[in-house]
Amino acid sequence: MARPLGPVRLRRTSPGTIIVGLCLVLVILYLLVSPSAPDFSAARKATAALHPLSPPTSPFRKSSAVGGKSGPPPVTRYNLNNVTITNDPVANRENVLVLTPMARFYQGYWDNLLKLSYPHELITLGFILPKTKEGNAATIELQKQIAKIQKHGLEKERFKSIIILRQDIDPPIPSQDESERHKMANQKARRAAMAKARNSLLFTTLGPDTSWVLWLDADIIETPPTLIQDLASHSKPLTVPNCFQRFYNDEKKAMDERPYDFNNWQDSPTAQELASKMGKDDILLEGYADMATYRALMAYMYEAGADIHTEVPLDGVGGTALLVKAEVHRDGAMFPAFPFYHLIETEGFAKMAKRLGWQATGLPNYKVYHYNE
Amino acid sequence: MARPLGPVRLRRTSPGTIIVGLCLVLVILYLLVSPSAPDFSAARKATAALHPLSPPTSPFRKSSAVGGKSGPPPVTRYNLNNVTITNDPVANRENVLVLTPMARFYQGYWDNLLKLSYPHELITLGFILPKTKEGNAATIELQKQIAKIQKHGLEKERFKSIIILRQDIDPPIPSQDESERHKMANQKARRAAMAKARNSLLFTTLGPDTSWVLWLDADIIETPPTLIQDLASHSKPLTVPNCFQRFYNDEKKAMDERPYDFNNWQDSPTAQELASKMGKDDILLEGYADMATYRALMAYMYEAGADIHTEVPLDGVGGTALLVKAEVHRDGAMFPAFPFYHLIETEGFAKMAKRLGWQATGLPNYKVYHYNE
Repeated sequence: MARPLGPVRLRRTSPGTIIVGLCLVLVILYLLVSPSAPDFSAARKATAALHPLSPPTSPFRKSSAVGGKSGPPPVTRYNLNNVTITNDPVANRENVLVLTPMARFYQGYWDNLLKLSYPHELITLGFILPKTKEGNAATIELQKQIAKIQKHGLEKERFKSIIILRQDIDPPIPSQDESERHKMANQKARRAAMAKARNSLLFTTLGPDTSWVLWLDADIIETPPTLIQDLASHSKPLTVPNCFQRFYNDEKKAMDERPYDFNNWQDSPTAQELASKMGKDDILLEGYADMATYRALMAYMYEAGADIHTEVPLDGVGGTALLVKAEVHRDGAMFPAFPFYHLIETEGFAKMAKRLGWQATGLPNYKVYHYNE
Repeated sequence: MARPLGPVRLRRTSPGTIIVGLCLVLVILYLLVSPSAPDFSAARKATAALHPLSPPTSPFRKSSAVGGKSGPPPVTRYNLNNVTITNDPVANRENVLVLTPMARFYQGYWDNLLKLSYPHELITLGFILPKTKEGNAATIELQKQIAKIQKHGLEKERFKSIIILRQDIDPPIPSQDESERHKMANQKARRAAMAKARNSLLFTTLGPDTSWVLWLDADIIETPPTLIQDLASHSKPLTVPNCFQRFYNDEKKAMDERPYDFNNWQDSPTAQELASKMGKDDILLEGYADMATYRALMAYMYEAGADIHTEVPLDGVGGTALLVKAEVHRDGAMFPAFPFYHLIETEGFAKMAKRLGWQATGLPNYKVYHYNE
């Protein structure tokens, strides 16, 4: 999705490489607290499901035994009339599903996640990790961190529930050490695989009581703690902050920052003309010198000191951080793993949402930060 | 999706009418059996989830108290290595999600569903009903029938779990009494609304342990009891039987049958040429005399006495009965509510699956029957 700008040459990728073997092999669900824990707060109790067949996004609370007989009733009914999607999700107790495809575990990502001030008892976390050596290592580290919080953390730190999926997938790029000139050629296969991972995660975890889905990449290590509230306050179908990266500027001899995610853009006549001349399986990519699209990139719209809530309409979005109303996904908006209007993955998602009547909104002055390798 | 053939005129539908207000308002989950029921079989126990946070597609069984302390552990792990999708799903204990958009309750549909010989403890039912007067009546009847089976039925009749969604939706067609000539004009809005209903149902109910999704329309009243096993035995990504309708033939003075679902087809050069000349928001519809596509319709490929397992490749499918491998949906294949290659809903779904590398297969000699109004 996001990668540094650089001049590279386009190579047609073999279609075979994008047919990846998807297979969900592992799911782990973490209970919020042990039922006998004495510190179970009233607020948490209110959001807890009373029924063991409740969806994975609701924590389960056994009802106390009545007349010596315990156990759930044979038929239970959930009235979700009050599942809302509003600009004040905390007050309305709206459930947020935070979805993260994770190839590597970054401590900075986890620490930032824990600092989010949105009530954790309303947050369900969903992860998908590849079944590779690196994915195994990340899974182990993730589980360790989860156990620390969910078993031993303060009650307010604990998340409502956590779901981990493991995915059998042929790594679309043989090695991360491939020469720079292959990068653009690999983009299509890599992003098709990423699109399928996102879809597997989304289709498997979205529940009936989910109000919002926050897509948050595993290498986002710094956001305002009020990220969810801030983005939701716009009450837009898709809301995207501006993804930057901190780095040491050798010239200035000081820390500096630069724009990072170039997938948030407004369309241009040049890009549309490029697309109209392409073969049906070709895709437009942003941020490559030999495919100049002249799109207006949100990455360059940042104005220091300006209102962080300034909105711009977007035609393509990245997935580094992206808040989506659950109804957009429920209407069918997903991440195309195939060229969709010559767009793929998150950029194709924005186009698909638009076809379903939902417009993407960017916040050029609202910054989140990407890890710097 | 399926409707009788008839000469009608094309009207452009206002785009406004297809933006329907989707809102999930009600979910009902039914527990398989009360935990204290003595008739809980070993087979059922094996498929039951041990953890209350298990997905809605798994029934919950409380683990017996250990050392006087009962209740779920704080961290539970599910290893889904053995979630398979094979041509022998009964032997491999594969979970099937049966999804039905329902505007009206047909007793024939329900009776046929109960007769399915696939182990009911492996079947989760998902319904979506509109929040209309008719939808309310259907919901009441459905709940009555469900209670009868899940609370009082024989153990082998009871389904693993049942999920009902209610959907706020502007009925895209003002009245069912509209004159025949409006039918084609209404198709696009009607099928866009149906696509969104299918997506809401799919995104909300698909769980991590689902192997197959059987789409079964509420007006399918007769199938072989071995429907699921028969379709799955082909081990194809998408498998569609041939949907017929029984009727009284006045000429023959006897009961007769006729093909009903015309959305199962193989593409034709004529249809492709028609599409290439269309505006980007126009859709191709099958079964209308003034839009002759010359596609090869599976409806007319039935051969009496021939092998019921004969396969034909399909480019468009209907949703009256349609078995889909869960991985096809997890890759992102959904029902486009917008023109996708000039196709919409189930026909667009077949095209989208194809773009993801999955081919649809029709069984022209394997018949299921649609209700006759």
